[in-house]
Amino acid sequence: MDKKLIFTVVGGDMRQVFLAKQLSLDLHEVFSFAIDRYSFPDNIKQLSIPDFSETQVIILPMPTEREKGILNAPLCNTSHKTSNIFDSIPAKTHVFAGGVTEDMKIKAEQNNIFLFDYLSREELAILNAIPTCEGAIQLAMEEMPITLHGAKVLVIGNGRIGSMLAHHLSSLHCEVTISARSPKDFALIKAQGLNHLHTNYLTGKLSYFDLIINTVPAPVMRKAELVEINDNTLIIDLASRPGGVDFKSAENLGKRAIHALSLPGKVAPVSSALAIKNTIYTILQEEGML
Amino acid sequence: MDKKLIFTVVGGDMRQVFLAKQLSLDLHEVFSFAIDRYSFPDNIKQLSIPDFSETQVIILPMPTEREKGILNAPLCNTSHKTSNIFDSIPAKTHVFAGGVTEDMKIKAEQNNIFLFDYLSREELAILNAIPTCEGAIQLAMEEMPITLHGAKVLVIGNGRIGSMLAHHLSSLHCEVTISARSPKDFALIKAQGLNHLHTNYLTGKLSYFDLIINTVPAPVMRKAELVEINDNTLIIDLASRPGGVDFKSAENLGKRAIHALSLPGKVAPVSSALAIKNTIYTILQEEGML
Amino acid sequence: MDKKLIFTVVGGDMRQVFLAKQLSLDLHEVFSFAIDRYSFPDNIKQLSIPDFSETQVIILPMPTEREKGILNAPLCNTSHKTSNIFDSIPAKTHVFAGGVTEDMKIKAEQNNIFLFDYLSREELAILNAIPTCEGAIQLAMEEMPITLHGAKVLVIGNGRIGSMLAHHLSSLHCEVTISARSPKDFALIKAQGLNHLHTNYLTGKLSYFDLIINTVPAPVMRKAELVEINDNTLIIDLASRPGGVDFKSAENLGKRAIHALSLPGKVAPVSSALAIKNTIYTILQEEGML
Amino acid sequence: MDKKLIFTVVGGDMRQVFLAKQLSLDLHEVFSFAIDRYSFPDNIKQLSIPDFSETQVIILPMPTEREKGILNAPLCNTSHKTSNIFDSIPAKTHVFAGGVTEDMKIKAEQNNIFLFDYLSREELAILNAIPTCEGAIQLAMEEMPITLHGAKVLVIGNGRIGSMLAHHLSSLHCEVTISARSPKDFALIKAQGLNHLHTNYLTGKLSYFDLIINTVPAPVMRKAELVEINDNTLIIDLASRPGGVDFKSAENLGKRAIHALSLPGKVAPVSSALAIKNTIYTILQEEGML
Repeated sequence: MDKKLIFTVVGGDMRQVFLAKQLSLDLHEVFSFAIDRYSFPDNIKQLSIPDFSETQVIILPMPTEREKGILNAPLCNTSHKTSNIFDSIPAKTHVFAGGVTEDMKIKAEQNNIFLFDYLSREELAILNAIPTCEGAIQLAMEEMPITLHGAKVLVIGNGRIGSMLAHHLSSLHCEVTISARSPKDFALIKAQGLNHLHTNYLTGKLSYFDLIINTVPAPVMRKAELVEINDNTLIIDLASRPGGVDFKSAENLGKRAIHALSLPGKVAPVSSALAIKNTIYTILQEEGML
Repeated sequence: MDKKLIFTVVGGDMRQVFLAKQLSLDLHEVFSFAIDRYSFPDNIKQLSIPDFSETQVIILPMPTEREKGILNAPLCNTSHKTSNIFDSIPAKTHVFAGGVTEDMKIKAEQNNIFLFDYLSREELAILNAIPTCEGAIQLAMEEMPITLHGAKVLVIGNGRIGSMLAHHLSSLHCEVTISARSPKDFALIKAQGLNHLHTNYLTGKLSYFDLIINTVPAPVMRKAELVEINDNTLIIDLASRPGGVDFKSAENLGKRAIHALSLPGKVAPVSSALAIKNTIYTILQEEGML
Repeated sequence: MDKKLIFTVVGGDMRQVFLAKQLSLDLHEVFSFAIDRYSFPDNIKQLSIPDFSETQVIILPMPTEREKGILNAPLCNTSHKTSNIFDSIPAKTHVFAGGVTEDMKIKAEQNNIFLFDYLSREELAILNAIPTCEGAIQLAMEEMPITLHGAKVLVIGNGRIGSMLAHHLSSLHCEVTISARSPKDFALIKAQGLNHLHTNYLTGKLSYFDLIINTVPAPVMRKAELVEINDNTLIIDLASRPGGVDFKSAENLGKRAIHALSLPGKVAPVSSALAIKNTIYTILQEEGML
Repeated sequence: MDKKLIFTVVGGDMRQVFLAKQLSLDLHEVFSFAIDRYSFPDNIKQLSIPDFSETQVIILPMPTEREKGILNAPLCNTSHKTSNIFDSIPAKTHVFAGGVTEDMKIKAEQNNIFLFDYLSREELAILNAIPTCEGAIQLAMEEMPITLHGAKVLVIGNGRIGSMLAHHLSSLHCEVTISARSPKDFALIKAQGLNHLHTNYLTGKLSYFDLIINTVPAPVMRKAELVEINDNTLIIDLASRPGGVDFKSAENLGKRAIHALSLPGKVAPVSSALAIKNTIYTILQEEGML
């Protein structure tokens, strides 16, 4: 990669900070905006106003918005409307967002901006699953008074995260069962050498487990399931809001359930930033910019 | 599973033999046809003519035909046209074939037969990958004067078989590289903790490997690639005919290349029969027959 | 195991608490002493004075003493001399200590007590290595902003803990190197499929690693080694006091070094208690008591 | 390693052939003797008489003798007495044997020869365990009509080979049980995440297994055990003669038992030669010769 570009990294958490630094280490010119509460080294200039006139590539955070219309910028002292940011961007700038909304699309079209959603790239979803799994393992280790070695673990869902997590837990000598719904998934679980259950028919089998980790964004741990879970059992829900666990019932029943969200940014911001950077590089290569 | 059915197992190799026996052990009534050269125990009646009047479920072999229009029946003393078999089947019989041709479809429609292609079921493809991988490992062990431990292995293709095979080889402490073509696959390979190459740009990197296993059904090991492979290196091609290796050039260049086909039936007929049986059971359950 | 015994669990931390509960669940009669600040259920009677007249088996904590002559009893409101405890024990009682001192041996002989050191049992050392390894992994996950996946890790020492830890880290897709000193250990490391270095010649190779975990109770990370370690690198020392890291130099040089001690009791008291219980059962079986 | 030496490789099988070639590739000067039926390239001179006057290091085969007093030389057209070989060796020559007998020791002392037993080196035993395990896996794959995936396997003995083999079988998704005799080994097996049995009390539990691999050189599979083994079960005995299986009873009972000996030389002569070479290099380094 010989070409050097001018980037501005806008908003976001420590992942954006590390991303800016990594871009700079790759010898690109890097500006930051809306990351006030971090002191960058001198070679990364902190913009006080959204002046993107020199910028070739803008990187918006993951997620770009937490609240509708407002830039996700926890390290910024003021709040910015996403639409204002977009209005400050010169035509033909390449803009990368972590989750593109309909409003952003319209703005990008109006302003003739080249807008890309790096969150929609499968390779990033795969690489993000790695810190998610490690975060779940760390959490289980922190919260349980028993070793993972020998623990009886149920992973609900055999998708990207469920499958990778089950593999790692099994390596650590957990006794792992995965629940899924299709003959295809049952075959995949069997091929991984693990036990399987049907996600729709978990009741009657749940008191066996020391740890239950849900990855399915649908109500799978309802009152009926929670009732029969052992009081010492830990439930970790990795599914995005509202998750797959009925947390109110869990609390009423005295069951320990944790909704663990956004693990990559929390447990491994440097690795997460690297994955975002590499995904953006791939897209820039496809676009002939790198 | 309480319901008992009447099966006839027709043609095929030892997998069909074991399939008949396994069905019988599950207490179904079982007939066989076109498997003359195997002596079944008394409870599996060998039909001398294709009389399927008592049969509820007919199981044709995998593959059902090797030669167009002719039943694949290596253990049968005579040759049977597939169309004749289909003409002998009473209406409303459930027929399972391993690979359904256009002609079979037409016949089935004409004769009002319920025809299913178990080979098209993804769970069977997954379960079949297991003996394919073990067969490839066995072959590599047999043919190489070095241990797999420490061997430098290139697996071409990160599909079902490539990915599973790479995982097992890595467990046996091979140093594994997978080649693939998409950023998604590169991320999957990285998540597996393995090295990757781009399948289109292998030249210049091939002399490194002790073992090269191809899983891609496209010309990937051409003369240009073969030239630079070490003379001691073993090439195993798992891709179905014509495979991905230019075998003529390999021979001319003095490289050792083996086209390893139909491994499941060869290395693990019992397990393969079991996978077929379970797939057929799943379909019969979906059809309300079991 | 049909025989039921009368146990008194004396002093110690949460491991002793869980041990008392587990013995009670196995239907033994259980007393506790010097564990004042935990409220046991009614079936575990808390003794206010060291009256062991009814007791058949006394279990002292791991370690039995932290300070010479004083019972290790962090959950007790008063301090007890170990010699006083021993003087309260009737002759012919079976007493299990986690680390037997010369003074204890003399007392046991004087008072005709059957004294056993469960810490000297190799099976317990092996089982204790499991939570130690998990604790080290948890700590690394907590302290590092990168994933273990892909991290370059040096494990110093190929003993019980080093070897097990390296295996688990490798399963989590770290790139693992173990350092050791003997050709035998180098062969063992190679057989595990991992890289090796010589512990005496680490300088010049240390800047490569993201994480360095020491298991050797000898000065291996001295100033000369610490100087060349990357500032972002985390050093975890698992060796018992004084450890193998020159912590003062580390601090002066601005390197992050953590002395992680007594991990089993901290990260997995329930599993640790179970391992102690099983070891004591094995000894009692050998003694014909169970 | 800068120093170059003059080696003569004497007798033995293909391992000695590969060993000679590897030494030559390392730029040492290499002679061969008593390996008539292999045509070495020109740079490895085949001696017709045992003239070791130019030689600094002589390498005798593994094992050096199969029959008492006779050099193990399957590729030689004539038979050689080991004593004659030793009488031809000049004083102060370094001689490496794979298994030193009392007679060899006496001769070496008489003739003032520096004699080393590379077989007694633990690192070689460890490295030899690798091809032994792979050979056992290959044999099991060849002989069984089921996949190792899902197979129920009993490994008898938790020594070097048993433990490594169990680990690899578990990686290939066998369901592995190891039998052993000591609490220490039971703890080690548990730490590996595997099931255990007591080797002395296997009866009553043997019909469960699809594959039984013995590594213990003592009668463990006697008539009493063999009787209850399933007829389809494969027994592989890796213990050196006479092994741990009562082969006569096995035959009478119609059980399939294979005594698999000398696997390293058979399945991986190149890797085995490399392990011998590295062990000899280590000894030569310790002796100040390299």
